[in-house]
Amino acid sequence: MLCLNTNMNMLYLMLLLILGSQVEGRLPSMPTKPDPDDAAATARWLVSLNFWGVLNTISIDLGGAPFSNVVSFSDGLPNEGSGIPYFYLTTLDPTARNALKDERASFTVSEYPLGTCGKKDPENPACSKLSLTGKLKLVDEKTKEAKFARNALFSKHPEMKGWPEDHDFQVFKLEIENIFLIDWFGGPKPLTVEQYLHPKMNNAGFIL
Amino acid sequence: MLCLNTNMNMLYLMLLLILGSQVEGRLPSMPTKPDPDDAAATARWLVSLNFWGVLNTISIDLGGAPFSNVVSFSDGLPNEGSGIPYFYLTTLDPTARNALKDERASFTVSEYPLGTCGKKDPENPACSKLSLTGKLKLVDEKTKEAKFARNALFSKHPEMKGWPEDHDFQVFKLEIENIFLIDWFGGPKPLTVEQYLHPKMNNAGFIL
Repeated sequence: MLCLNTNMNMLYLMLLLILGSQVEGRLPSMPTKPDPDDAAATARWLVSLNFWGVLNTISIDLGGAPFSNVVSFSDGLPNEGSGIPYFYLTTLDPTARNALKDERASFTVSEYPLGTCGKKDPENPACSKLSLTGKLKLVDEKTKEAKFARNALFSKHPEMKGWPEDHDFQVFKLEIENIFLIDWFGGPKPLTVEQYLHPKMNNAGFIL
Repeated sequence: MLCLNTNMNMLYLMLLLILGSQVEGRLPSMPTKPDPDDAAATARWLVSLNFWGVLNTISIDLGGAPFSNVVSFSDGLPNEGSGIPYFYLTTLDPTARNALKDERASFTVSEYPLGTCGKKDPENPACSKLSLTGKLKLVDEKTKEAKFARNALFSKHPEMKGWPEDHDFQVFKLEIENIFLIDWFGGPKPLTVEQYLHPKMNNAGFIL
């Protein structure tokens, strides 16, 4: 039995190491995927659990072409998300420069990196995906929102705190105007910004 | 020793199951990340090993706003990629409709899903990212290129073969005009489309 326990402990430790490395920077808990009938909960779940996505702007350098870029983001402290994606961007990168010239932007996350799509292809409608379209705005550093956003970002992305000061990273947010959610067959789910930002909650404070 | 072997076998099997589920749909082999000094090899490596990304178009429905969308893609059979991303899209989805009206598009992939960024944040320049900008074009079904593209897509995304015929999925490709590659500190790597499409190869046929 000593032999069994020793090896089971080793197995357990190795599994922890592997699974730990998979969720680096993610939320400590992984709530179950909401029911496909609940579009608001599904969209908020995707934004809450993802921690990077692709942010798109209208390119200054490329004569108005759409320009997509990998970014990290956060909508709040773990389990306290607002649904609004905040970003930490520098004008050394085209995305921030583009947004300061033309605010129109969209931001996309997929269920696939969360590991809950099983064997389904990332383009299979049963593997959900979300695109938020709106205006990418600089958040005034003096506001409470900037403080909230920095806490939100630094809690999910601890290394951001140490990024070079002379790079002038600033907080941006996506002011959402339109939501495109695919989660199951039958086309995009009808979902208003109001429904997304203020989803129905149960008594325990969880999104229903 | 029997005890040890039994538990070690169990450990091995569980590790295989976990690691197997992580590489679902990926290439069978995972070549080492190229040297950051070799921009062409790094960009081709990112396109060869990723199998989904975010494709961006100019939205018809949203008055010209950028619209980003999760898509699956392939640039060729495993280890035989062309560098050109091919997509399998339906006009039931806005991306294909947008492209047929305005071809301008960009396509982004990240190193992060490949699992080689370690503990680095997805926005850390040492975790590489690639954005290809150009024209999203429908590929004529009668051409050899369409056959190549279908083989490329179906080899990486076997379930595509069974997608509903009445959804009229068609092959699209990104005709690349501009490349934005971040791979290490110091800003985007200079990389022309010519260098990307025709990288230097060694005698064994591997990208240098």
